[in-house]
Amino acid sequence: MASAEKESIDKAVIEKIENVGRNALKEIEAGKNPEIQIPLRTLSNVHYDEKERLIKIGNAVQKRSYLNLGQAKRFMQTMLIASACKDLIKTGKTTSIRDLFYMTKHSIGNTQENTFDEQEESDPIIEDLEVTIDTLREELHLFASNRGSLVGNITLVDSGDTIDCRKLGSGGWSIPSIVEKSIIQFKDSEAKFVLMVEKDAVWRRLNEDKFWKKHNCILIHGQGVPPRGVRRLLWRFENELKIPIYVFVDNDPWGLYIYSVIKQGSINLAYESKRMAIPTAKFIGLSSYDQERYQLPKDVTIKLNEEDKKRANQILGYPWFQKPAWQKELRYMLEKGVKLELEALSKKGISFVTDVYLPEKIAKKEWLE
Amino acid sequence: MASAEKESIDKAVIEKIENVGRNALKEIEAGKNPEIQIPLRTLSNVHYDEKERLIKIGNAVQKRSYLNLGQAKRFMQTMLIASACKDLIKTGKTTSIRDLFYMTKHSIGNTQENTFDEQEESDPIIEDLEVTIDTLREELHLFASNRGSLVGNITLVDSGDTIDCRKLGSGGWSIPSIVEKSIIQFKDSEAKFVLMVEKDAVWRRLNEDKFWKKHNCILIHGQGVPPRGVRRLLWRFENELKIPIYVFVDNDPWGLYIYSVIKQGSINLAYESKRMAIPTAKFIGLSSYDQERYQLPKDVTIKLNEEDKKRANQILGYPWFQKPAWQKELRYMLEKGVKLELEALSKKGISFVTDVYLPEKIAKKEWLE
Repeated sequence: MASAEKESIDKAVIEKIENVGRNALKEIEAGKNPEIQIPLRTLSNVHYDEKERLIKIGNAVQKRSYLNLGQAKRFMQTMLIASACKDLIKTGKTTSIRDLFYMTKHSIGNTQENTFDEQEESDPIIEDLEVTIDTLREELHLFASNRGSLVGNITLVDSGDTIDCRKLGSGGWSIPSIVEKSIIQFKDSEAKFVLMVEKDAVWRRLNEDKFWKKHNCILIHGQGVPPRGVRRLLWRFENELKIPIYVFVDNDPWGLYIYSVIKQGSINLAYESKRMAIPTAKFIGLSSYDQERYQLPKDVTIKLNEEDKKRANQILGYPWFQKPAWQKELRYMLEKGVKLELEALSKKGISFVTDVYLPEKIAKKEWLE
Repeated sequence: MASAEKESIDKAVIEKIENVGRNALKEIEAGKNPEIQIPLRTLSNVHYDEKERLIKIGNAVQKRSYLNLGQAKRFMQTMLIASACKDLIKTGKTTSIRDLFYMTKHSIGNTQENTFDEQEESDPIIEDLEVTIDTLREELHLFASNRGSLVGNITLVDSGDTIDCRKLGSGGWSIPSIVEKSIIQFKDSEAKFVLMVEKDAVWRRLNEDKFWKKHNCILIHGQGVPPRGVRRLLWRFENELKIPIYVFVDNDPWGLYIYSVIKQGSINLAYESKRMAIPTAKFIGLSSYDQERYQLPKDVTIKLNEEDKKRANQILGYPWFQKPAWQKELRYMLEKGVKLELEALSKKGISFVTDVYLPEKIAKKEWLE
């Protein structure tokens, strides 16, 4: 089934890529100037959809045509990238965006002109293609760097190998960059929720304490802002297993940004929100109120710097943080003027996070949404 | 067996820590000024041991005493860290160095003075303790950030879980920071060598092509300069499985530095060379001669910048790069004035690295040592 599904996705993407080429060809044969319409990925074409609770891309497009001195090179580059992706899919291989840059970089004919000089040129063209044919990068067989690990009450099938995530020791399963259904399938899972932790050190503590076993969950970290693979996997857990995602981050503007990206998507990748953002994701901590709530001594707090304050004020203004509870939370952080790291909980004992903090938060449903 | 071994290591480390305390106590009771002798970790106390082919720490020590205005605080900090590590080992838990900072940070009595203000203060104290009692950080139950993944022809036992690394799909086993025998044991391995790749994207390509299956090896990446866990694991593979380690890095001074760290150890961690450095590690590529050897077009090369040239000249002077073959290799890089990334091989086809480059290098034994 997995391979049939993979085949049908691959076929659909190839069809979309070929359409781009066919349309250009038709226009050339009709003596017209071939043109591609690419949805604009600028801030002005991004908005927050209140109903769906997602950051989405709007309808504005840019036109890229062949017979235009300022656009001819990028027109050529777009066709080149599209063609290389088609080849990748046809040969059933995946590669990195750096690799794709090397694969498509060459001198043009007998000129000194290169198709690409720097990867900074090819990366945006890949994003153009993604948004133009409404296809995930991963479906174009391209991957980013992989970060993040997983353990917990689930069995996965990865490229045909069955992986019991309950038996992965201290290391866990290294989350790949491409986690599409065609490669990764979910087999058995009794997990009741997913706990997504910002930091690998805290993930390790929770794994050593077998938190996921006691509380029947899946335990993930993404080493900072979670990469695409982790975000897409969280999305699939929420949508396919129908279980909630709890996000556990530092109590600082950066931690809130991480939560915000998981929840609503990012402005940068707005066109992929619908396949990555999880509006129901729950913020389980750390809250600005946790210092008092758990009687953490003052010396574990760190002063907010100017950058932190600026970011916190920006977040205060985000449409998706307008609920009174969120406004209260954010204002309290600014009022206290301090931040708090996940590791601060160790002040109360090394396994306080496992034995007290998280179980209490979950039992009392003490989270923000 | 694993747990008996773990117990005996833990016991030995606790004994060493307690000796530090006992000695101080004895001196206090004798009315003397208690003092700790700490091997110096400065460049002047580091040398290259020609015979063992390792960067090693010398015999110079610094004295840290209690009744000394300039040393009293650090004396106290050393005792505090030692005591916290003893508690960790006794409770059978591991933690991060950031966590240890929080655990040991507190105000002293009724003063405004903190034991530690920043993690920058506690980290070097941990290194002091490691080198003073000649114990790996991992044996003190402390871990660093984990990076790197593994697949291949080996079965591991990690914290009691049996992990068949032949069946880990596209993600692989996430290599933890602590890979000591007490946690990770090797079970079955038919692997004939280990291939250590600098970049995860190339690792992924090789894994997708099942290189490790065809060539009977273990495939590892460390995402750049390999972290302690990956280095220690490579060391254990070499020493316990008696198989060679091939290192596959970019053809640039940074790639050579990565190779050099794996091979001889780093100046920074000279005191741990004997438990991490692998003098027999082989450099399998990319070589400066590979562009001609494999007819890679000129447009895949990147000019060396000033920093690159400076680093290359430094490496030329390292005692462990004095063999004629290495001098030739390094001089050729400088003469050509360009570097070459692993991804450049994709110019010859996406699986050229798997099907041609690596098999040829290994068959012809075309490596440097």
